[in-house]
Amino acid sequence: MFQSFEVTARPEQGPPRLRALRTEIAAEGLAGFIVPRADAHQGEYVAPRDDRLAWLTGFTGSAGFCAVLPDVAGVFVDGRYRTQVKAQVASDFTPVPWPEVQLGSWLKDHLPDGGVVGFDPWLHTPGQIDQIEEALAGSRIELRACDNLVDRVWPDQPAPPMGPAKVHPIDFAGESHASKRARLARELQDAGHRAAVITLPDSHNWLLNIRGSDIAHNPVAHGFAILHDTGSVDLFMAPAKLDGMADHLGPDVHVSPPGDLLDRLATLEGPVRLDKQSVPLAVANALGDRAAWADDPCALPKACKNDAEIAGSAAAHLRDGAALCELLAWLDAQPAGKVTETDVVAKLEAFRRRDNALQEISFDTIAGTGPNGAIMHYRVTEETDSTLEDGHLIVIDSGGQYLDGTTDITRTIAIGTPPEDARAAFTRVLAGMIAMSRLRWPAGLAGSHIEAVGRMPLWLAGQDFDHGLGHGVGAYLSVHEGPQRLSRISTTPLRPGMILSNEPGYYREGAFGIRIENLMVVREAPSLPGGDDHRAMLHWETLSFAPIDRRLILPDMLEPAHIDWLNRYHADVAEKIGSRVSPETKLWLDAATAPL
Amino acid sequence: MFQSFEVTARPEQGPPRLRALRTEIAAEGLAGFIVPRADAHQGEYVAPRDDRLAWLTGFTGSAGFCAVLPDVAGVFVDGRYRTQVKAQVASDFTPVPWPEVQLGSWLKDHLPDGGVVGFDPWLHTPGQIDQIEEALAGSRIELRACDNLVDRVWPDQPAPPMGPAKVHPIDFAGESHASKRARLARELQDAGHRAAVITLPDSHNWLLNIRGSDIAHNPVAHGFAILHDTGSVDLFMAPAKLDGMADHLGPDVHVSPPGDLLDRLATLEGPVRLDKQSVPLAVANALGDRAAWADDPCALPKACKNDAEIAGSAAAHLRDGAALCELLAWLDAQPAGKVTETDVVAKLEAFRRRDNALQEISFDTIAGTGPNGAIMHYRVTEETDSTLEDGHLIVIDSGGQYLDGTTDITRTIAIGTPPEDARAAFTRVLAGMIAMSRLRWPAGLAGSHIEAVGRMPLWLAGQDFDHGLGHGVGAYLSVHEGPQRLSRISTTPLRPGMILSNEPGYYREGAFGIRIENLMVVREAPSLPGGDDHRAMLHWETLSFAPIDRRLILPDMLEPAHIDWLNRYHADVAEKIGSRVSPETKLWLDAATAPL
Repeated sequence: MFQSFEVTARPEQGPPRLRALRTEIAAEGLAGFIVPRADAHQGEYVAPRDDRLAWLTGFTGSAGFCAVLPDVAGVFVDGRYRTQVKAQVASDFTPVPWPEVQLGSWLKDHLPDGGVVGFDPWLHTPGQIDQIEEALAGSRIELRACDNLVDRVWPDQPAPPMGPAKVHPIDFAGESHASKRARLARELQDAGHRAAVITLPDSHNWLLNIRGSDIAHNPVAHGFAILHDTGSVDLFMAPAKLDGMADHLGPDVHVSPPGDLLDRLATLEGPVRLDKQSVPLAVANALGDRAAWADDPCALPKACKNDAEIAGSAAAHLRDGAALCELLAWLDAQPAGKVTETDVVAKLEAFRRRDNALQEISFDTIAGTGPNGAIMHYRVTEETDSTLEDGHLIVIDSGGQYLDGTTDITRTIAIGTPPEDARAAFTRVLAGMIAMSRLRWPAGLAGSHIEAVGRMPLWLAGQDFDHGLGHGVGAYLSVHEGPQRLSRISTTPLRPGMILSNEPGYYREGAFGIRIENLMVVREAPSLPGGDDHRAMLHWETLSFAPIDRRLILPDMLEPAHIDWLNRYHADVAEKIGSRVSPETKLWLDAATAPL
Repeated sequence: MFQSFEVTARPEQGPPRLRALRTEIAAEGLAGFIVPRADAHQGEYVAPRDDRLAWLTGFTGSAGFCAVLPDVAGVFVDGRYRTQVKAQVASDFTPVPWPEVQLGSWLKDHLPDGGVVGFDPWLHTPGQIDQIEEALAGSRIELRACDNLVDRVWPDQPAPPMGPAKVHPIDFAGESHASKRARLARELQDAGHRAAVITLPDSHNWLLNIRGSDIAHNPVAHGFAILHDTGSVDLFMAPAKLDGMADHLGPDVHVSPPGDLLDRLATLEGPVRLDKQSVPLAVANALGDRAAWADDPCALPKACKNDAEIAGSAAAHLRDGAALCELLAWLDAQPAGKVTETDVVAKLEAFRRRDNALQEISFDTIAGTGPNGAIMHYRVTEETDSTLEDGHLIVIDSGGQYLDGTTDITRTIAIGTPPEDARAAFTRVLAGMIAMSRLRWPAGLAGSHIEAVGRMPLWLAGQDFDHGLGHGVGAYLSVHEGPQRLSRISTTPLRPGMILSNEPGYYREGAFGIRIENLMVVREAPSLPGGDDHRAMLHWETLSFAPIDRRLILPDMLEPAHIDWLNRYHADVAEKIGSRVSPETKLWLDAATAPL
């Protein structure tokens, strides 16, 4: 199985490691050292070698950092992880609520006499360091880039990942890497940039039509790339990973070991484009005043999928939807009080693996029943595993990585007879999800301009949820991809070809959780009779197909147009998925997709 | 009457004035001169003395500027004025589409050999000049602050306005100016600013609880003010305007003539707060490195009305709604083909004047019938005046300035039997207007986050409109007030007490226009049974009361919840307005507010 239910946090491992690190900090003449969750690629997942924060503290969340001082070690975590961190770290560590408490002010409180705090410049962006330094202005504390001191005291630190890379076939990529390199090179020329340094693996993997297996869940090969304004690329990646790929990469992609990056940067003529959001400070420092700040040139082209990528994603979603339908049919056949959350996760992964197309799961499946459903980023473990009881809801949020696409889908399922207020909240979440699905809007708007459409039914009842409505999704790449988002903070205009999730939810702490999620692709909307002919408009094409639990819907709360949408959607589900499932599941599916 | 239907544009006046100005430009050794619409207070309306753009070019729009060079004089206007400018300026002037064409690039095209372009530093903000200078980088063109050359060649230029100021009574203001000055002074202290220069008349008029009569439609007294961190104020305003106001202003408000401002600025200790959006460059230059950039300290407190201001506004709206109902009842009694647009405007102003409470109209009434309704900022003149014909819609957008509040309301009325597609579009506009009216939303959101709610019914039909959904409105002040807006560009969070318009529309060029507008005030929403108790939410309280034309509604297109809202609203209109109108109008009102 890709997913494990192991409890990986061992609070007792932290204190001796913390002591060793403090000895090293003192030996360097420093007053402290910062240990972030991030690696040099600022991604959501890190290789075991880069999981320094978990190794040191025991905290396994996907974001956060530890600031180690002589007398205190603060573990900074956001609202999602306030409870988890307390269970995972020993008392030698002090959880700090972040971003409410910023590192700069915390350092000033705990180092009143000043001092030098070290950090690894490969693990922080210039923006992050600038922000801390601004907060430290006027104090006698300074930051200093240095070696990674955790690596010095981690005797059995794993080696860098050496997952083999593979070609991402043109049938799925839809555009050769020569063509991508040429059009991005023109963009660099237009901007007057001689080159761009690309440090995000999903960016250079997209650019070169390669995929890899260096980290969990994301099919990327780690490395760095320099795109020149000629269209040629220097790829800094362990050559052993690229065995047999010389023909694919061709003569205009030059491969060197990652360790050669800094020497090559020294020879570049400026201006060289860097992305302030993601570049390591070490790279920025190496370029000095040759750096020019602008977005990663791959980010927007990668987000706007071409026809082959959209067709691949659609095919992956049908395959994945069939697996989910098998799981849902199986689940409905189980009596309440028998199945546990880990049973659901294991069964779902088994259904996804049946046709051997699954490369990986997109993320650890969230299967939260009863109160666990209200924990937005719940990962079930042996300790938390709970039985699905009569009256529960279960939130099942999962996805698969297939060669032709990445999926991410959430369904909330009734176990027995859930209470009326849960069904009312479910119906509001569904109303918002449908309202967004059937929206059309004028071209040029960003996610922040339309996100309210998916929340309004909850708002009118005095309810809301504390995550974005949706995130971008890659094409056999990261399941969380920017710059497209359905969020109040997203100002990037939505463009045809962008794939996003639409996942409103509702969470009542200690009681239940609800989330319904489909992936959708932005399309140019056809003009309508009586509409404004001069106005370019966009709409969504839904990619995900699986029934939405009719037992949780209070139909009187839905508008007729929303019921029509749901009935049409369910008819599509029956038509597209029916031929892909077992005869028993087909019977279940026909009932589950019957018109309301 | 406050409103005139005179055609004020005389294209033939422009060429001799342009020649005189060019002579003056050459005598100064300049290659050109910029003539903006703005005065030193960056307001929407200017005094006749400051209407330099109209005097020079003939163009009377509320925004734009002219760049005069030896061989070309570009009149830069935005999309609203593309047609109007062609009719108003002589062929010596060249209309330029702005902001598509920016002044900087236009200057580079027309002054290939470079040169010095003059401008009056009192009429431009630092941000505006910075933007032009950035665009000129690398050219041999430079900008230079100089005297206003238009004033030198305008022999009969009117004197600065000397409208008497008056006290804005505490019953309407709700807070003494001593209290306002004290709390804003604390804010300056907290920000470390020694003083703030306030150049917007509605800001210092609000601060000092005064009103004036220097310009049309906005009841403000022109001048400048310096608020010190002690709470004392230096007011630079012609003392003759303030006759008899010494007791009101008291010992902590020091009055000096406007001409003393620069000398006083020279003596100020920094940092002195300036608002980049509105301060004249001349003021910023006088302060040099003592300037600190931040928002006008009055802007947000002024936008968040207190209980007295909200009560005053509500009272003004009832009075104003009664006048509008008299007009609508009268209009319905007229046969099609008889009444013209100017008749409607004159009659409406007469109804508003009847009880002598009207101080001014808030803006020139827009009364556009048939194709004129599709011109968003239509001002009827003797030349365009049109008869209301059977099958027409008429858009009537108007408002009044009362001592207790400022109103702004739009109704679209059927003349005879308008076509089905117009009624369908009207129903969509109404559905959006109702959806926004009944919204509740989590505190912290800005207009950009919720504006879509008012547009969605049009979007779903492939339609939209090209103006914001709503603007802020003052309390017996400007009818267009920032920073609150219902617009995709507004990122200021909405706060309790802010008054905004809710005015979706639809415009079919050459055919008809539709707009429905109420003013609403932001209120804290009471918690709902089953809602999230921990979540602060806001909602709207509607201020405007007048029937919405039931003959234009296709009820089958509305949701039941929207019909309920409309029926409740109409019941409120009947109850609140019924006792304030004539017996004949009361009969009309009962029919016009009957449930759908």
